[in-house]
Amino acid sequence: MNRFGIRFAITTFGESHGDLIGVVIDGTPAGLNIDLAFIQNEIERRRGGKNAYSTQRKESDEVEIISGVFEGKSTGTPITMIIKNENQKSRDYSAVSQLFRPGHADFTYQHKYGIRDYRGGGRSSARETAVRVSAGAVAKLMLNELNIKFMSGVSHIGGIGSNNYNFDFARESEIFSLDPELETEQKRVILDAKESHDSVGGIAVVRIENLPIGLGEPLYYKLDSMIADAMMGINGVKAVEIGSGIKSSSLRGSQNNDQINSHGFMSNNSGGILGGISNGDIVEIKVHFKPTPSIFLEQKTVDIFGTEQNLNLKGRHDPTIVVRGSVVAEAMASLVIADLVLLNMGRRIGDLKKCYQI
Amino acid sequence: MNRFGIRFAITTFGESHGDLIGVVIDGTPAGLNIDLAFIQNEIERRRGGKNAYSTQRKESDEVEIISGVFEGKSTGTPITMIIKNENQKSRDYSAVSQLFRPGHADFTYQHKYGIRDYRGGGRSSARETAVRVSAGAVAKLMLNELNIKFMSGVSHIGGIGSNNYNFDFARESEIFSLDPELETEQKRVILDAKESHDSVGGIAVVRIENLPIGLGEPLYYKLDSMIADAMMGINGVKAVEIGSGIKSSSLRGSQNNDQINSHGFMSNNSGGILGGISNGDIVEIKVHFKPTPSIFLEQKTVDIFGTEQNLNLKGRHDPTIVVRGSVVAEAMASLVIADLVLLNMGRRIGDLKKCYQI
Amino acid sequence: MNRFGIRFAITTFGESHGDLIGVVIDGTPAGLNIDLAFIQNEIERRRGGKNAYSTQRKESDEVEIISGVFEGKSTGTPITMIIKNENQKSRDYSAVSQLFRPGHADFTYQHKYGIRDYRGGGRSSARETAVRVSAGAVAKLMLNELNIKFMSGVSHIGGIGSNNYNFDFARESEIFSLDPELETEQKRVILDAKESHDSVGGIAVVRIENLPIGLGEPLYYKLDSMIADAMMGINGVKAVEIGSGIKSSSLRGSQNNDQINSHGFMSNNSGGILGGISNGDIVEIKVHFKPTPSIFLEQKTVDIFGTEQNLNLKGRHDPTIVVRGSVVAEAMASLVIADLVLLNMGRRIGDLKKCYQI
Amino acid sequence: MNRFGIRFAITTFGESHGDLIGVVIDGTPAGLNIDLAFIQNEIERRRGGKNAYSTQRKESDEVEIISGVFEGKSTGTPITMIIKNENQKSRDYSAVSQLFRPGHADFTYQHKYGIRDYRGGGRSSARETAVRVSAGAVAKLMLNELNIKFMSGVSHIGGIGSNNYNFDFARESEIFSLDPELETEQKRVILDAKESHDSVGGIAVVRIENLPIGLGEPLYYKLDSMIADAMMGINGVKAVEIGSGIKSSSLRGSQNNDQINSHGFMSNNSGGILGGISNGDIVEIKVHFKPTPSIFLEQKTVDIFGTEQNLNLKGRHDPTIVVRGSVVAEAMASLVIADLVLLNMGRRIGDLKKCYQI
Repeated sequence: MNRFGIRFAITTFGESHGDLIGVVIDGTPAGLNIDLAFIQNEIERRRGGKNAYSTQRKESDEVEIISGVFEGKSTGTPITMIIKNENQKSRDYSAVSQLFRPGHADFTYQHKYGIRDYRGGGRSSARETAVRVSAGAVAKLMLNELNIKFMSGVSHIGGIGSNNYNFDFARESEIFSLDPELETEQKRVILDAKESHDSVGGIAVVRIENLPIGLGEPLYYKLDSMIADAMMGINGVKAVEIGSGIKSSSLRGSQNNDQINSHGFMSNNSGGILGGISNGDIVEIKVHFKPTPSIFLEQKTVDIFGTEQNLNLKGRHDPTIVVRGSVVAEAMASLVIADLVLLNMGRRIGDLKKCYQI
Repeated sequence: MNRFGIRFAITTFGESHGDLIGVVIDGTPAGLNIDLAFIQNEIERRRGGKNAYSTQRKESDEVEIISGVFEGKSTGTPITMIIKNENQKSRDYSAVSQLFRPGHADFTYQHKYGIRDYRGGGRSSARETAVRVSAGAVAKLMLNELNIKFMSGVSHIGGIGSNNYNFDFARESEIFSLDPELETEQKRVILDAKESHDSVGGIAVVRIENLPIGLGEPLYYKLDSMIADAMMGINGVKAVEIGSGIKSSSLRGSQNNDQINSHGFMSNNSGGILGGISNGDIVEIKVHFKPTPSIFLEQKTVDIFGTEQNLNLKGRHDPTIVVRGSVVAEAMASLVIADLVLLNMGRRIGDLKKCYQI
Repeated sequence: MNRFGIRFAITTFGESHGDLIGVVIDGTPAGLNIDLAFIQNEIERRRGGKNAYSTQRKESDEVEIISGVFEGKSTGTPITMIIKNENQKSRDYSAVSQLFRPGHADFTYQHKYGIRDYRGGGRSSARETAVRVSAGAVAKLMLNELNIKFMSGVSHIGGIGSNNYNFDFARESEIFSLDPELETEQKRVILDAKESHDSVGGIAVVRIENLPIGLGEPLYYKLDSMIADAMMGINGVKAVEIGSGIKSSSLRGSQNNDQINSHGFMSNNSGGILGGISNGDIVEIKVHFKPTPSIFLEQKTVDIFGTEQNLNLKGRHDPTIVVRGSVVAEAMASLVIADLVLLNMGRRIGDLKKCYQI
Repeated sequence: MNRFGIRFAITTFGESHGDLIGVVIDGTPAGLNIDLAFIQNEIERRRGGKNAYSTQRKESDEVEIISGVFEGKSTGTPITMIIKNENQKSRDYSAVSQLFRPGHADFTYQHKYGIRDYRGGGRSSARETAVRVSAGAVAKLMLNELNIKFMSGVSHIGGIGSNNYNFDFARESEIFSLDPELETEQKRVILDAKESHDSVGGIAVVRIENLPIGLGEPLYYKLDSMIADAMMGINGVKAVEIGSGIKSSSLRGSQNNDQINSHGFMSNNSGGILGGISNGDIVEIKVHFKPTPSIFLEQKTVDIFGTEQNLNLKGRHDPTIVVRGSVVAEAMASLVIADLVLLNMGRRIGDLKKCYQI
């Protein structure tokens, strides 16, 4: 099951250390200008800056469009994009080929399939998220035509953070921090973890603006359930909140209900979603990422024969995954919205009569 | 989109105040003993006790199996179950037919579809969850043959709770409380809210035991993403946590990783899931329910013409939805697992050769 | 897998001799007038007249709408319709409960599932097609708003027929014969078969008019492939032809190509479909039904233990299934078109911008 | 909708004259030996021989596996294969870029999407079938482990043919002719058409042997309906027959029913399928291909502005598509069976208990 979505659907393929990773997008409306520079820029955002807070693979991550676009425009046929893996043969994996790294999918892939591509996590590597981002960029190009906007950032690192969200600041921050007051402290938390050969978790926030009322297909393809699916499916995510989120469980109805006046909803605890359908307000999502499982402290594990071993990982790994993860979360949100926008067409007989033939 | 699942899939139908609600289950293996008493008992658990903490509809909620079962066994054809709505004509809905109740789906259904069945929430009513529970009961009958067990309870009410989970106690508790020490206080929180004509939120916990290693279809039908989808799709859920959940975002990798020895995982922050696939450990899920949106305090709203109105709701409503919601969450978990168990068949060529023809 | 369609999808349930059969339709646009009399009339067409050429069950086949319609209009939520089985307990099935009737699904259901509801064919009975017709009626109500028209009839009975199609005549004919010149002879063929305790096959023709250009989703949800799927899935169908059909395999390109002038296509060998997409011309489908497998001549068979037996069927069975089958084929065509019309929305970015929010 | 299948599913991408065409296969069991030489050989069969009866593109059609295989075995993750288009820039398409070729999808793609890649048919080109064949080869590798066999050939060319099927002969024949007696005459029919600057249609036959009883998911994912879907979706197919096919519509029940004795079915008019489920007998499918629409006789058409034009095609085109089409039909059959085999797992509770965990 390597497909996500119904009307705007992606199928991804490839492993961390194979020749390439790629995505097929099925359902892009025809005639859309496919702005390659924008797509590449989104991929760059996910790569992270060359700084102390992330540790990049040395690859250029250059996206290539290999189908579905003709003379710069989508043709309605599947858009395929690939990113080549440049350094895939550069390492010796014999040290970890028979060991299960704690916090990774090595154990479960091995037991499920009886075989696994152990090089860099193979299919389970977060590298696959690069093509999610490229697909999300196409979704955004489409949704931009409808004026729907996506933004994201990091609200918390290792527990340090606030609800003060400045998305413009986050876009320029080396760690995509949402709070200018706390960025410095958050950077320190990351460096502390890194210096301790450890890693640290964090919270990403995704915001969607200018959604029309009515997105979401009740009762089993709701806007909120699809967001939860999309977010929890990202590597390392352990919790998803929408609107008032975890706080809602400790509130009273009189505190949590969003009353309505002639200007609209008077608060937004719903996070822009009622009954699984967008209500026109801002959709706000919190995504909790666990700390990077690859740490450089010795850990206990077993090998594929069940024998206990000590694991000492080497190599380059981000001290936190939430920074790059926030961009992936934003991309996944755009995929959900693109799908629901298309599914929403023809929801009323009046729309259908007016629009089915142009 | 009123279908959930691929191999073990449900399609539900019906509205709160129509003749009946129902579910079609597609994919039940043939030859399973369909224990009607067990199914009815699950529905009774969701109805809640006749006590001060819940306010039932007066209906008997008697489930009827109308297809797919022959001489007590499943035949492999779709199992359909219905529950009649007995009191559907008993009320006058003129007072709310043109008003949008805060926290409800009235506003979004009206704007999406241009029409809505305003009687008791129509399709968006939580009444539909009764048939989710009946379908979940069939899933459990199947999974019980594989010794997979489900349990649930309420850990927090209005912020009062603990991580001390006693599922046996919860099963007998009037409010499905997981902590014998806190049940009394939690009951008081509910009654306080009720006496204030208000409502209160809470957290449900679902636990799954004896899962085999290997459930979950990477990368877009993962065990955790499907759980998130299933839970966030329940009326009133605003956040979902798996394993260390929200706590994971403030931990370090050395704290959050589950190291492994020859007896298995030495901790369970993963919540039994690595890379979207079950690792054989206990799966633990926290589901945050918002407070019941129907409260009896005056609220500001607008009518379908956009004119501001004061809303004064009447009638019977649970002061908290988490109690009955916990049973629904457990049922949704069983539907996810039933689907993934069947999808997991034939994952290795060896299994396929051995089992494809019996 | 008891579901058909993506955006306009049906899920059917029930067996020949259970309490009822039913269908859930998912995806009907909201605000459509649901004309129950029209739906019932379509079901009556499938029941066939009370005449010598068909042998009805004595049931009234009264359709009931139990969800998805409010004050006469669709609400966008699933429309469920049921038809009760009135005579389901009236017979003794012990004679056939352990025998496999030639030409029926008894053998395959028993071997696939290890259990089967042997009463009247259970789930495999053509009785289920009654709810396909009721769902098709809803599809037609929707498509009628777009002026898309469906018609059907019987062109051949036992090899007797022509390509002279008079759909108005067929609608009034007791055997839905398309050719006024041959109706009498075709009736005689049916009666001859009946008098010989035998049955006879035939060809149904379905025509769709006023389709817009552009229906069909390449490359794997094409208009023609979905029609083939829909038709071949009807009980007793063994071949499906579109446009020039089987004749095309003996023609030359210069004979088969439909040249184009400023008035449109100069012929219609394509059957209105090019590259899997409607070209605006009439879509014409031929559906070959095998003779009714239930005949009253002695047949050789085995029982469920593999012992050879002679089978002597009793009861009432149509001497030909193509007559009622033609109505089912027409209904299936309408389901395909309804799905493709909705899937076609938003196929161009211009449409999406213009129509996504109304 | 560029996806086919549920459990064993393919997604194809690419256009005739883009950089490459490709396929992602989702659902291959892990641990299967992926024999690249076999896959390449299947692709060679589709390319056709270098002879007077087919006119190849000059490309080498070399398949590359770019994901899903590790150390020669499938890993359970998506298998992606690509074939590069080598000569994609070699022609001047200005002559046909604004004209609709009769019998082609130019007209419908242009009107559906408002844009089309006119180079060689773009996405609608039969070139895409090369990757269907490569995916079918993987399906066959899997099914070969279960001893299920596929074969195909050409029974008729331009009406010349018989029901004498010699699949071994067909495999070696330059035109995949099934009848050694008629091959010479069939070749002459092809050459006659070619010399007349015309083309000719034909019938392909696909046979499946050693199917287990029980494949096919009633009532809407039947073996026969999926075969019909798969076959009718191939470029140029206008009719599909299973078992007695079109002949069944002129037979009596006593002629068409397959009676049963202790050795099995006494005839095979059903084509190995009863009630949409395999009965263990040979499955036989006839696929009617129209003549190649690209002919070198002048044809009337219009341009994209609706102005009448005379079309004079140039270039290389097979005088008949049924020869290479037969290989594609065989591949599509293998995809259907692979999917249904996997969907069939867990159909009985006994199987599930025995096999769900190994």
